[in-house]
Amino acid sequence: MIVLSVGSASSSPIVVVFSVALLLFYFSETSLGAPCPINGLPIVRNISDLPQDNYGRPGLSHMTVAGSVLHGMKEVKIWLQTFAPGSETPIHRHSCEEVFVVLKGSGTLYLAETHGNFPGKPIEFPIFANSTIHIPINDAHQVKNTGHEDLQVLVIISRPPIKIFIYEDWFMPHTAARLKFPYYWDEQCIQESQKDEL
Amino acid sequence: MIVLSVGSASSSPIVVVFSVALLLFYFSETSLGAPCPINGLPIVRNISDLPQDNYGRPGLSHMTVAGSVLHGMKEVKIWLQTFAPGSETPIHRHSCEEVFVVLKGSGTLYLAETHGNFPGKPIEFPIFANSTIHIPINDAHQVKNTGHEDLQVLVIISRPPIKIFIYEDWFMPHTAARLKFPYYWDEQCIQESQKDEL
Repeated sequence: MIVLSVGSASSSPIVVVFSVALLLFYFSETSLGAPCPINGLPIVRNISDLPQDNYGRPGLSHMTVAGSVLHGMKEVKIWLQTFAPGSETPIHRHSCEEVFVVLKGSGTLYLAETHGNFPGKPIEFPIFANSTIHIPINDAHQVKNTGHEDLQVLVIISRPPIKIFIYEDWFMPHTAARLKFPYYWDEQCIQESQKDEL
Repeated sequence: MIVLSVGSASSSPIVVVFSVALLLFYFSETSLGAPCPINGLPIVRNISDLPQDNYGRPGLSHMTVAGSVLHGMKEVKIWLQTFAPGSETPIHRHSCEEVFVVLKGSGTLYLAETHGNFPGKPIEFPIFANSTIHIPINDAHQVKNTGHEDLQVLVIISRPPIKIFIYEDWFMPHTAARLKFPYYWDEQCIQESQKDEL
């Protein structure tokens, strides 16, 4: 309807300007590249068209495939992440469920069971293309590309947006782990949605 | 410890038999092939080793990559499904969130918005490798392989186990849709876990 009114030869200049503004607003809201599109998101999206960023972490490519803040989902969130050889996540924990599906490459999962006051020396699990991994809730863990090619993983978490506690090393007390919320890729949109509510 | 006691030359035959039985029980519980392993599931699993079945649906291969009934997860569930050309899901709806990530092939998503008393003629969305799709909660939908090669998708749902309402066609009233619970691939394990609670 908006497109038709823009194209109408009988429209006054004010109507045309207003319609173009509406049209631009519409496309900015529905565009895959918009940072926080919540409304009007296409049902089918080409993953190659989604925005990606390293959020200041060398060797990382992060894409939010489906998410609460970006896409209005309340119960699951899916990331596509690629780690260059040698790159890694921080040591961290969270109280949501998390599953990895490894699409390409290989690496190591470091996982510490949280029975004591600090994570302690982690167990090492080799991870590889076509493997799946579940992270026990609240266990401190880290994923590192210890291979020679890119490590690409789909990450599925529950109850987004994620609240992550970061450790500087495996012997830092759980109580000293630093809460990073909103997490790097949720920052812009959580701040925008909070502004909307004020 | 069990292995050591089996190997001990000083063990009596009864101890050996008992230990072997324990060992077999242990491996049956932790094996990837066990239908309902809940406890002792390895943190890292090779997807190629997971059991697959078509559950009586020609052209389907279903694998539960991570799930509530199988793996003790409460908030997310992940399936890997492959549809041969021409095969399809039933027309169905559910109140949980659902996201598809298309890994291979192409097909069509049929999606009806549920404003009336029945789904009505659905909108058709082409789906393709490297696309992602989110299904609006409670909207009736169907995925069909309308291409010429296998269609492979990762399916992520929230709040497992899933409760699916099945329609015979797009004009069946919502109230007539048939609840199928537990769903085919949850049947055996939900019945077993119910038995355990009695």
